Amino acid sequence: MPTYQAQVFVTLRPSVLDPAGTAVKSALEHMGHDNISQVRIGKLIELSVTALDEGSARSQLNSITDQLLANPVIENYEIRLIPVKELTAH
Amino acid sequence: MPTYQAQVFVTLRPSVLDPAGTAVKSALEHMGHDNISQVRIGKLIELSVTALDEGSARSQLNSITDQLLANPVIENYEIRLIPVKELTAH
Repeated sequence: MPTYQAQVFVTLRPSVLDPAGTAVKSALEHMGHDNISQVRIGKLIELSVTALDEGSARSQLNSITDQLLANPVIENYEIRLIPVKELTAH
Repeated sequence: MPTYQAQVFVTLRPSVLDPAGTAVKSALEHMGHDNISQVRIGKLIELSVTALDEGSARSQLNSITDQLLANPVIENYEIRLIPVKELTAH
């Protein structure tokens, strides 16, 4: 069975306050970077999945992300899959 | 000046232990997902930068990430820039 390298990007929904992002923005302003705005902090989870095909890998990852990796009430997520063969070709 | 939507992906260097990733992998095994391996948790920082051009936005982001967003001793990072015009075309 093929192995896929997966990246799960978890970000706060736009309507949810992000105190960590606000703190980073304020630190950047103190450092003189006043051309930066809308700082939001999210998570990036990388994992390897061995599955029959891309479809089944993706549906398993959707279920894992809904149950464990993200909080669907306050977070959005996006899943990117790369077959490992394609990875090693670089 | 153009505005760029930037994504900074911060990941632990491969040689650095990731206890949070190990905990997630173990939770997934308990949930029956035994086809998943190499779980690593990183950060995704999204921000908007107004800069003269892509080159100056990128060099400012490199400096910010080295100083504030990542710890270069234990973390790697990658910066992705999207001009906002391109963003709104989707």
